[in-house]
Amino acid sequence: MIQELQPPAALDGAAADALARARARTAPALDAALGQLDPWLREMAAHTTGGKGLRPALVLLAAEAVGADPEDALPGAVAVELIHTFSLVHDDIMDGDERRRSRPAVWKAYGTGPAVLAGDALHTLALDTLLRSGGPHAHSAVRHLVHALGDLVRGQAEDLRFENRPWYGPGAVTPHAYRRMAERKTGALFGCATALGAVLGGAPHRTVEALRRAGRHAGVAFQASDDVLGIWGDPALTGKPVYGDLRRGKKTLPVLTALAGAPPAHARALTALLAAGDRPAEAAARIEAAGGRTATVAEAGRQLGIAGRYLSAAPLDPAAVRALRNLLSFLPDRHG
Amino acid sequence: MIQELQPPAALDGAAADALARARARTAPALDAALGQLDPWLREMAAHTTGGKGLRPALVLLAAEAVGADPEDALPGAVAVELIHTFSLVHDDIMDGDERRRSRPAVWKAYGTGPAVLAGDALHTLALDTLLRSGGPHAHSAVRHLVHALGDLVRGQAEDLRFENRPWYGPGAVTPHAYRRMAERKTGALFGCATALGAVLGGAPHRTVEALRRAGRHAGVAFQASDDVLGIWGDPALTGKPVYGDLRRGKKTLPVLTALAGAPPAHARALTALLAAGDRPAEAAARIEAAGGRTATVAEAGRQLGIAGRYLSAAPLDPAAVRALRNLLSFLPDRHG
Repeated sequence: MIQELQPPAALDGAAADALARARARTAPALDAALGQLDPWLREMAAHTTGGKGLRPALVLLAAEAVGADPEDALPGAVAVELIHTFSLVHDDIMDGDERRRSRPAVWKAYGTGPAVLAGDALHTLALDTLLRSGGPHAHSAVRHLVHALGDLVRGQAEDLRFENRPWYGPGAVTPHAYRRMAERKTGALFGCATALGAVLGGAPHRTVEALRRAGRHAGVAFQASDDVLGIWGDPALTGKPVYGDLRRGKKTLPVLTALAGAPPAHARALTALLAAGDRPAEAAARIEAAGGRTATVAEAGRQLGIAGRYLSAAPLDPAAVRALRNLLSFLPDRHG
Repeated sequence: MIQELQPPAALDGAAADALARARARTAPALDAALGQLDPWLREMAAHTTGGKGLRPALVLLAAEAVGADPEDALPGAVAVELIHTFSLVHDDIMDGDERRRSRPAVWKAYGTGPAVLAGDALHTLALDTLLRSGGPHAHSAVRHLVHALGDLVRGQAEDLRFENRPWYGPGAVTPHAYRRMAERKTGALFGCATALGAVLGGAPHRTVEALRRAGRHAGVAFQASDDVLGIWGDPALTGKPVYGDLRRGKKTLPVLTALAGAPPAHARALTALLAAGDRPAEAAARIEAAGGRTATVAEAGRQLGIAGRYLSAAPLDPAAVRALRNLLSFLPDRHG
């Protein structure tokens, strides 16, 4: 039977517990890996670590879902967190984002050159961590990670180039093109996380593939929900400047769906407002009035639904799948 | 019998031939790898490729030296060239170098953010190339490459931090600390190149290790010779600004050996000149008078001698070793 993801009663509590457990389990291994870095690089890397640990939790829960000891998947949990941190450090340079997790971004705090190097160090450390683990599935795990890295880079390239395309009319970014970008930029590492849990847990190819796809769709849901938070989120909770995405004129899903669905006159007015970038509150209200917020929340739900169907169709441990569903359902509401 | 590297009679011709042959063999495979990149990233990557192809030549000659078909080592040749290009693209950002191979550096031509991404793409493509080759030694090759990448990052971190240390007196960078940095920053990828040729050629561990060490020492020789060219090289041949290293106050081996050997009064005068950075021709003359140029050329020779002894002690194909020696001997004179 195929089942949609449903928000359980004690959603936040269960998801928060799963995250806390995964963080507690991953932290010592992550520290040990970072301890191999040159002290200066370690300091810069530590500046950016300390997130919720969503991706390591996905790795460990996926391992449990295939009936493995999550300990076997620990190098995978560390590797995805290191790659996530690498991408934050480099993306903040590319996007000119000055703040991250309520602190100056690494490039603001240490300079652009050192931040480039810190990212490179994290990139290599992630691969080294998987190779050093030396388990029977380490090499297969490295393949998954390198494949995800290729997607990550391609998605980021697409996202950067979206900036030079028009908001509306011929050549504009379609919601479809955006989803494809998000699948690469965000979905790939989520899919890699769930795949690594399964791979390192010794699961057969079919099961690995089901978990990879579930993670990938969950990643797109995460990106959509991140876009909503980037406009309507509380800066005290997101750690990012208020209306940051609107001020920077970033082409995110709420804006693109609002423009795609609006009558031409409304779309032109919103485009002018976005291009000016100086009245973000008014732009946010217009995007919401044009249905951009609702459409994006719906897209997040739709992607989670697909993720849920992949989980239902695979032969997985029911308790672990429940925990995985709880965690994924938590995404759209993660900041209240 | 242990033999030192001796410059053969037809040095430049033989080395140039070996490089040209390796470039012709590597180019189609390199193009095929770059063809997998997003077109924008490919354009940025291509902006920086087109060097002499020294590292791919080392891979292919090392494969021949262990009696293998160099074709088997082609993915290694492509991978080291991609990693070399990655490091040029990122290092130019870190060092603020505006020109590379007589053209604007990628970050000058395309912007810092895109250059960070282009480097990341090359990094991942190198790993992907080794993994896709799918030969029996692909995973061992990946281990060598990841190990070298760790050294590369650590060496670059040390080099960047040298900038904040005094020229002279307590806390100054010693020639010994410089050599250790150069072993990582430059030697690691040379050693990886010769090791990959041996690994992909199916050589036993001992032989791989001898070739890795030979390459590593050759890399230190290369760095020393690069430092000489950075001060006394012809900008028309090096493609870099005249006296660039002296203007930027870079702590290179000629400077460090000159300062380490000079009487205190001379060292203080040179330090003042270097700190001001506005009379590089005078600084260059003083460095030369204090023996910095001679000591650095001698160090390059010493490192090539060690490399030669590793080659002599290993069971290798004599013709390929002769070609390898020719190529390595060419390093100190490569720009006349």
